[in-house]
Amino acid sequence: MGRVTKREPVLRLDGSGAVGSRDTLAAEEPLEIRVGGKQIAVTMRTPGDDFDLVAGYLAGEGVVRGPHELARMRFCGDSACSGPVGLGAAVGLGAALGSGAAAGGADLDDLEAQFEHRGHDPYNIVDVDLAPGVDAPLWSLDRTTYTTSACGVCGKSSIEAVHANAHWSVRDDPLRVTPDVLYSLPQRLREHQKVFDKTGGLHAAGIFDAEGTLLCVREDVGRHNAVDKAIGWAVRADRLPLRGHMLAVSGRASFELVQKATAAGIPLLAAVSAPSSLAVELARDAGMTLAGFVRGRAANIYAGAERISR
Amino acid sequence: MGRVTKREPVLRLDGSGAVGSRDTLAAEEPLEIRVGGKQIAVTMRTPGDDFDLVAGYLAGEGVVRGPHELARMRFCGDSACSGPVGLGAAVGLGAALGSGAAAGGADLDDLEAQFEHRGHDPYNIVDVDLAPGVDAPLWSLDRTTYTTSACGVCGKSSIEAVHANAHWSVRDDPLRVTPDVLYSLPQRLREHQKVFDKTGGLHAAGIFDAEGTLLCVREDVGRHNAVDKAIGWAVRADRLPLRGHMLAVSGRASFELVQKATAAGIPLLAAVSAPSSLAVELARDAGMTLAGFVRGRAANIYAGAERISR
Repeated sequence: MGRVTKREPVLRLDGSGAVGSRDTLAAEEPLEIRVGGKQIAVTMRTPGDDFDLVAGYLAGEGVVRGPHELARMRFCGDSACSGPVGLGAAVGLGAALGSGAAAGGADLDDLEAQFEHRGHDPYNIVDVDLAPGVDAPLWSLDRTTYTTSACGVCGKSSIEAVHANAHWSVRDDPLRVTPDVLYSLPQRLREHQKVFDKTGGLHAAGIFDAEGTLLCVREDVGRHNAVDKAIGWAVRADRLPLRGHMLAVSGRASFELVQKATAAGIPLLAAVSAPSSLAVELARDAGMTLAGFVRGRAANIYAGAERISR
Repeated sequence: MGRVTKREPVLRLDGSGAVGSRDTLAAEEPLEIRVGGKQIAVTMRTPGDDFDLVAGYLAGEGVVRGPHELARMRFCGDSACSGPVGLGAAVGLGAALGSGAAAGGADLDDLEAQFEHRGHDPYNIVDVDLAPGVDAPLWSLDRTTYTTSACGVCGKSSIEAVHANAHWSVRDDPLRVTPDVLYSLPQRLREHQKVFDKTGGLHAAGIFDAEGTLLCVREDVGRHNAVDKAIGWAVRADRLPLRGHMLAVSGRASFELVQKATAAGIPLLAAVSAPSSLAVELARDAGMTLAGFVRGRAANIYAGAERISR
């Protein structure tokens, strides 16, 4: 995982003195997302699983639901990325799907092996061609969708914007889980946080089936990116909607994480830390189960408690 | 702090059973930032200290440096916010400065007492009029500034964009601190995290002088917002550049937090958790001191170790 971490010199202080050493840091670099050559977002992310990140981001915004809606994704080598591929690499989604079902997510490594790596830049822009008939996003950057409501921005309009973009409802999802399965999710996620072990500096998101089996885990310096990557894996594997599945995150549950889960059709979100007020409001409104402070053999259920079998 | 937290019902599970209860959650709502009536950003934030948030955000983007550059800030009651003030409230910056020097930040409470509160919406849009001669931001939303570089987006271009926006350099700042003062920052910050105590769900940022005295602490569901609020307090109190001061944050140190500190002229950033690679690169490039994993009587110094007196 060369680009996922970086080794840097550090001076370690403690009560007794100081010693020079080296530390492994989580890598952070900007990623520009383009649709049909037009920039729609820039996010600061940990390199790796970038096609998953882009697919998950687009699914969260209601643009795509599966691989058939993504005609092509490619890294770009120059700013005229809507033309032929430059220094970067292009892959058909079919090829990428071959490795998409593995929890490790090896597509970027494969690409780097296939193409000469002439610097970071070509791998910091991903351009997506949508399939014919798929509407490109109308907004130029995320969040602007919230502001079209006549009432101005508010929690209620934010929740309504989520429903307006929704392809699926999780309200009637028949998922039922025991408390023991719920309690097990953070530990199983933690066991697969390879980069966190080295750096102490990444968020993680994992997708689980109803029995609590971990299907995919992704890490990133950004909490939203980790979730986008995990959901993007499912998009590219044509697994949306994720009925009967669960999403676990290593930190807090914000409004945007609940939004991303609903857009993927996931009926249960489990967070190691606290939810925000608007996360709880949206989960209730969408009929999703939201668990927070899932630690050891305890958890708080803020919404959808009927899915916890006791 | 009525709007800062919300009480919600919760089902508490543990190994022995389940009990219904109520939990205090950190409030999260969207805030739209406008300059001269034009939307420039929407952020999901914890309500409160919103004028500080907006002032700090604009300082981080290189737009303003002090209260003289902010002609007026106001909450808006309708979408035609560039006209007369609607349901919301307008205050001159001079009045707001009166309470600006207190660590508690009472401006929103004051406003709510002065004006009838007819719902949340009027308080989720802040419109700023810049003083004559102050350039409005050219970008329509944050992050787009990074993509103008000819080389496309990359860590190097991100760092160059920060320097292009910089009004001050922290490289020659003569700040010197002992390890004991550095170690003390997280604990002093923690002692003032009133909302975290209730919710377990907020980030905090604090500004300290060279002796380690806490001057201002702000909390938010978003790490960037907490920093914007703390720095915005200093902007409105005409304390920029914050030479000889320190910024402490309750979580990790990302690129964007280092960027915000440099824009405020702060020569030292202390984080309780890990920094990212790009945060370290920017700190070194800017001549800032960056400390991570500041816990108990230990810390890692990733950049600018000469400011730690031993």
